Amino acid sequence: MTEALAALPPLLVEEAVERALKEDLGRAGDITSAAIIPPDARAEAAIAARTPGVIAGLALAGTAFRRLDPSATFDRTLTDGSRVTPGTAVARVSGNARALLSAERVALNFLGHLSGIATLTRRYVDAVAHTHARITCTRKTTPGLRALEKYAVRCGGGSNHRFGLDDAILIKDNHVAVSGGVAEAIRRARAYAGHLVKIEVEVDTLAQLREALAAGAEVVLLDNMPPATLAEAVAIAAGKAVLEASGGITLETVAAVAESGVDYISSGAITHSAPTLDLGLDIAVRG
Amino acid sequence: MTEALAALPPLLVEEAVERALKEDLGRAGDITSAAIIPPDARAEAAIAARTPGVIAGLALAGTAFRRLDPSATFDRTLTDGSRVTPGTAVARVSGNARALLSAERVALNFLGHLSGIATLTRRYVDAVAHTHARITCTRKTTPGLRALEKYAVRCGGGSNHRFGLDDAILIKDNHVAVSGGVAEAIRRARAYAGHLVKIEVEVDTLAQLREALAAGAEVVLLDNMPPATLAEAVAIAAGKAVLEASGGITLETVAAVAESGVDYISSGAITHSAPTLDLGLDIAVRG
Amino acid sequence: MTEALAALPPLLVEEAVERALKEDLGRAGDITSAAIIPPDARAEAAIAARTPGVIAGLALAGTAFRRLDPSATFDRTLTDGSRVTPGTAVARVSGNARALLSAERVALNFLGHLSGIATLTRRYVDAVAHTHARITCTRKTTPGLRALEKYAVRCGGGSNHRFGLDDAILIKDNHVAVSGGVAEAIRRARAYAGHLVKIEVEVDTLAQLREALAAGAEVVLLDNMPPATLAEAVAIAAGKAVLEASGGITLETVAAVAESGVDYISSGAITHSAPTLDLGLDIAVRG
Amino acid sequence: MTEALAALPPLLVEEAVERALKEDLGRAGDITSAAIIPPDARAEAAIAARTPGVIAGLALAGTAFRRLDPSATFDRTLTDGSRVTPGTAVARVSGNARALLSAERVALNFLGHLSGIATLTRRYVDAVAHTHARITCTRKTTPGLRALEKYAVRCGGGSNHRFGLDDAILIKDNHVAVSGGVAEAIRRARAYAGHLVKIEVEVDTLAQLREALAAGAEVVLLDNMPPATLAEAVAIAAGKAVLEASGGITLETVAAVAESGVDYISSGAITHSAPTLDLGLDIAVRG
Amino acid sequence: MTEALAALPPLLVEEAVERALKEDLGRAGDITSAAIIPPDARAEAAIAARTPGVIAGLALAGTAFRRLDPSATFDRTLTDGSRVTPGTAVARVSGNARALLSAERVALNFLGHLSGIATLTRRYVDAVAHTHARITCTRKTTPGLRALEKYAVRCGGGSNHRFGLDDAILIKDNHVAVSGGVAEAIRRARAYAGHLVKIEVEVDTLAQLREALAAGAEVVLLDNMPPATLAEAVAIAAGKAVLEASGGITLETVAAVAESGVDYISSGAITHSAPTLDLGLDIAVRG
Amino acid sequence: MTEALAALPPLLVEEAVERALKEDLGRAGDITSAAIIPPDARAEAAIAARTPGVIAGLALAGTAFRRLDPSATFDRTLTDGSRVTPGTAVARVSGNARALLSAERVALNFLGHLSGIATLTRRYVDAVAHTHARITCTRKTTPGLRALEKYAVRCGGGSNHRFGLDDAILIKDNHVAVSGGVAEAIRRARAYAGHLVKIEVEVDTLAQLREALAAGAEVVLLDNMPPATLAEAVAIAAGKAVLEASGGITLETVAAVAESGVDYISSGAITHSAPTLDLGLDIAVRG
Repeated sequence: MTEALAALPPLLVEEAVERALKEDLGRAGDITSAAIIPPDARAEAAIAARTPGVIAGLALAGTAFRRLDPSATFDRTLTDGSRVTPGTAVARVSGNARALLSAERVALNFLGHLSGIATLTRRYVDAVAHTHARITCTRKTTPGLRALEKYAVRCGGGSNHRFGLDDAILIKDNHVAVSGGVAEAIRRARAYAGHLVKIEVEVDTLAQLREALAAGAEVVLLDNMPPATLAEAVAIAAGKAVLEASGGITLETVAAVAESGVDYISSGAITHSAPTLDLGLDIAVRG
Repeated sequence: MTEALAALPPLLVEEAVERALKEDLGRAGDITSAAIIPPDARAEAAIAARTPGVIAGLALAGTAFRRLDPSATFDRTLTDGSRVTPGTAVARVSGNARALLSAERVALNFLGHLSGIATLTRRYVDAVAHTHARITCTRKTTPGLRALEKYAVRCGGGSNHRFGLDDAILIKDNHVAVSGGVAEAIRRARAYAGHLVKIEVEVDTLAQLREALAAGAEVVLLDNMPPATLAEAVAIAAGKAVLEASGGITLETVAAVAESGVDYISSGAITHSAPTLDLGLDIAVRG
Repeated sequence: MTEALAALPPLLVEEAVERALKEDLGRAGDITSAAIIPPDARAEAAIAARTPGVIAGLALAGTAFRRLDPSATFDRTLTDGSRVTPGTAVARVSGNARALLSAERVALNFLGHLSGIATLTRRYVDAVAHTHARITCTRKTTPGLRALEKYAVRCGGGSNHRFGLDDAILIKDNHVAVSGGVAEAIRRARAYAGHLVKIEVEVDTLAQLREALAAGAEVVLLDNMPPATLAEAVAIAAGKAVLEASGGITLETVAAVAESGVDYISSGAITHSAPTLDLGLDIAVRG
Repeated sequence: MTEALAALPPLLVEEAVERALKEDLGRAGDITSAAIIPPDARAEAAIAARTPGVIAGLALAGTAFRRLDPSATFDRTLTDGSRVTPGTAVARVSGNARALLSAERVALNFLGHLSGIATLTRRYVDAVAHTHARITCTRKTTPGLRALEKYAVRCGGGSNHRFGLDDAILIKDNHVAVSGGVAEAIRRARAYAGHLVKIEVEVDTLAQLREALAAGAEVVLLDNMPPATLAEAVAIAAGKAVLEASGGITLETVAAVAESGVDYISSGAITHSAPTLDLGLDIAVRG
Repeated sequence: MTEALAALPPLLVEEAVERALKEDLGRAGDITSAAIIPPDARAEAAIAARTPGVIAGLALAGTAFRRLDPSATFDRTLTDGSRVTPGTAVARVSGNARALLSAERVALNFLGHLSGIATLTRRYVDAVAHTHARITCTRKTTPGLRALEKYAVRCGGGSNHRFGLDDAILIKDNHVAVSGGVAEAIRRARAYAGHLVKIEVEVDTLAQLREALAAGAEVVLLDNMPPATLAEAVAIAAGKAVLEASGGITLETVAAVAESGVDYISSGAITHSAPTLDLGLDIAVRG
Repeated sequence: MTEALAALPPLLVEEAVERALKEDLGRAGDITSAAIIPPDARAEAAIAARTPGVIAGLALAGTAFRRLDPSATFDRTLTDGSRVTPGTAVARVSGNARALLSAERVALNFLGHLSGIATLTRRYVDAVAHTHARITCTRKTTPGLRALEKYAVRCGGGSNHRFGLDDAILIKDNHVAVSGGVAEAIRRARAYAGHLVKIEVEVDTLAQLREALAAGAEVVLLDNMPPATLAEAVAIAAGKAVLEASGGITLETVAAVAESGVDYISSGAITHSAPTLDLGLDIAVRG
């Protein structure tokens, strides 16, 4: 697991934190701290969970604090992907008081948002743990934060779908309609795409699934099919293509979907509707 | 209401859409559409609500489509802030098929995210409609999207708290502790701040409230007080300061809080934990 | 004073210096030093005042030198806000000779420009020191340098007006005209603005002032009124609103204006027409 | 003259205006206009001079208005470089009322700043009109605005010195000291520089001037020499190099310096210490 | 072919042209044209080939001209991917003379560079036309221009390898060495990667090939094998994996490599060592 | 030589490397290394030449590695401008294994590209070493990399022509045609340009050369003249202007051109058609 989590590109982290700090500090900076906190005061802070969940985004929190005080220390008590319960210590930070107070909200906003996604993902992952199905995300992410949110999905035990329109082909109903059929759409895709691009095609019926398999689709997205139909699809595909179930799947229905034997279950909710994870940061300033 | 909603700065809209499109299109662009859709094909699409809610962010959706096809038309059926029920038409777009397919996800991601915030805000606002209390947001926003999310709060009938650390002073417990007391913290803040900066101070007790009022605080944040204590605070303040209740207030408890007579109730959940609003976009491509 | 001065956000400093260095170094860099100065030569430089004034912007100068030689030392002899006379030592810098020569002009351009503003501000501040009036700035700043110039105003003993169109409401004559009156304009502003936004209204007559006070304006800008009228305004307001005098006030007239009893006097000249402060930098290169 | 003025690169204009608008509009935009001005209200405005001077920067003002309302019209009554007296009409603008009110300050800040530089430059140029000397600028410009300020110098009738450290070689005292002499410094510069790079050398004495001429310097900067010495230098150079006088030259002394026969007189004051030109913008909003 | 070529994302084109124009125009813009060409002069220009080749990048050329004169017309005589001989007309452009002269070099630099890549690619493609092998590129591209160069490869009839380190997995010798073997490396890759990520593994020997096939590699890169060994590899793979030959393949050797039966042949030379295509632009200015 | 090479501005290096790394790492980063290489594994790598040539760009390679692992060491075995033969060690790098593997391609792409230019330049320079002619570049560079490529030209022993349209005047045929003649074009240029701007004029005939010399041109570009005509031109100019030969000069013809006595010979090929220099990087990972 550790290797997977390490794949958050450091340049992305720096850029995201920089933008968030500028957004919060604005033109005049943290005027409350400037007015009240002595410039050389020191502070220590502890981050702890207040509700159960999975942590993601510690690198962003640490980067936020150190960006405003390069000599600040940020010690993680655990790693991204760890489960926490109320009270679990997450990290400790120590440094210039003004810097810590100024970076606090940015650090927590990142940590809470990404941990929220990891936490919800983990609930889906746990719900299908008795099957071989994996939970995967979609492109339904918060604008500007996709790579970070996809990382949070991995922290929650999920797998990543494509990162954008450019790194894999996903043929949808409109593409099929324009092409005149699933087979022709796959043919066009194969003619266009390089040999390191996977091709997935969305189908609504088992007839389309058979057409897709005959045309050599590598991955087939089974859209809005009930578990029984999915099970039929699994039998039809017989391992010739990876099967992904999609469409309105909830925490209540995901187990039944997984038991159909599909390989992947994609969910938009794990990125676009995950509530934040409640984390507390207690700061002690020594004036 | 119209005026309020118009205050979404166009430069911010353009910048946010540009970043989101680049994130989704990556280096190679929408390879599926490039492979399959004829370059001159046209398409029409209709956006409609699938669940009840409040719309916010139409300008972002329109900008996304027109950024990829400047001659595309985007016709709003309603305006930001409107309530919708399942099936309510939201907008129609017409233009180059590749452009529409490529921009679809970005448009919906913005629209769903901001409408989700407007929808949740509206639920809080409706819950306190029988009182004079207003719902207000916090700085607990998604990194990089604060101004857009604050706009969505207004679309849902909420009011905006400060936009960053720089446009108002909010004295918190740490600031008070370092200063040696509420009154001294307010004094320092007043000495530092310009005459167009409001000063708010967070208090935990009614004694602190009295100290804050005596020191001339313009706004007092009453942290984690039960409704009965809040009502006492309202009586003590007697209109000498604006009172804001804060801390773990939910849809279940917000009415009781509002009935205490406070002026504002702030909620982090309306921005950091609002599920997306489910919106559908049906595209018809004419090859 | 120290706290106020510390509020120059470090991210802004870095960004401003980066832009200025790129502007000066262009595509080919400092070709004179590259041609003539050995790459490992060291240099020491001393910055000193040549005319009397107030220093502002030392952080920018230091950042410029260290950006080109991270191991350079920059020692301040005094702090921003300090008064200097011809010959007063300001700072000493030591490092790679090419780096120091390349950064010299950028460092001095920032320091001279901001110290010029601090110096002129201080002259206004001194002129009204016998009154309770404070000197405040406007939005008439050099494009792209507003936050830095507002910081320089504080270094000169001035107070800051709003930083942009977004952090406070200032109702001007056109807004009043469109609204149909001062009271209606204030009503609209109050309905729109959050509770942490101050509302100021500009008035031309004492009748308008009375209307503004009745409508609950928190700050009133008295535009182009002679001292006698200002004194009347002070009597009318009787502490119910903060009063700001504005309009063509010069170093010659500012004392009389202040003696009217107004709380703030705003001046565009302190930012848009301050001559640079003459500072010398003597470099000794050891080849 | 027209051709010279047209050389303000449009990309620079757009970039400078974009940055300035973002600086002023911040996160929430022009909240006063959003609160009070109906979204479809129209406005017309006239820009006129209030004090005598020379206009520079009309393209920036026009770009500011049109950036916020692409359909706005901006009609120049005169061109950059024109002299104005109090009351001279400069331009008329018509468009959406909110857009015009929001862009007003940015437009005027650019126009006033650059016109101030053009105006002061013109005073120096007029003072030496009876000689063949030309007034030229320096690198003592406002950080981030160099190209715009150099353009303003041309609008005032001045000539441009180098734009940065990279487009010409200027050998100063430190370079000479490290090299062991003027001739060796010139030799190194010539060996390094391409054939389209001019080489100027700063000299303090006539002996150094003779050394520079012997070494083939194309331009010689005569630093801090009184007019009589400058006249001697002119005689010594006898047309073999371009001569530039520099160092503490004021409006009072510039004529005497020019009468020495030097070719160029450089002044930092025309860019770093020019007061803004007072321009008025009268807006009429039609609600 | 048309569909493939249309996949050059317009946002990338705009960004690349913007950067290139800024690089060439610098701070002062095109001073030669500003000095000499009347501001309203018009010009017409024709772009034609001077040597045989394949055209790529017309959108960049057109964007460059229109960026400086939005009303300029740019008419393509042919489309990207077309073969040209000396004298073949490529495009005609008409517009403001200064704008055309200022954009000329940027337009030609893009067009020549990308056409050079398309031309060299086409030579490789033609050399293997009698086989089923396809020519593909690598990540050995000019820094900052990868997506444009990959597009040029497609214009020349080539196919694209991965666009970066993030859109496909390519296991190289070091990865194999660390893992302890090809099979383990593939296992780790599969565990980490999402289901839309292809996995390619580089092998040096036929034994490694067998191991890779057994481990389920989808694509195998055969590094530096002579044609006879490649033919053996083809027989061994028997269609179970896509085979890519790589390593020092030249125009002289590529046909023999292709005749081995491999599916893809990758070449770094087509992007990193393609000479520019010589194109002439004849401008006629009408003063 | 060392001084010349040191003139690669560090800010440009950082910016170019940052852009290239982001281009290669994309949204998800180096997924192969993340999947396979343990996060704490170390690696050492040696860069060596595989073909003869001249090295340029070591700073870029070093910056790439250290950007991903700030504690990595990068030791140069030689300096930019050094000649290498197959096997010559160039540099050694040591650091985190993932970081080194992720930065490898960017480092080599820069180093190979710039060394390729230096190598080709050196071949031209060597070919004219028996004359006093210097080889110089043009503006025919890869978009976005001009300053780096001009630096590589210097590393190869070449001299730099202007860096953009803004740092020198080059009057071409169209400028002459519009002006009505060489002399008038020069007159306009001189009237416009500052005294630190060199003026070069392109001529097609000896008659135009005489006109240019009479008008005081400082540099004359002799376009497409055979060596005999060039020799005549040299005689005519007689040292009164710098002479530059240009137009289709190849490695085969450059010596004859140089022997005509011209001062500079410009070549577009050295930047736009230089094949990459083949460099190998051998990494050893210690897991």
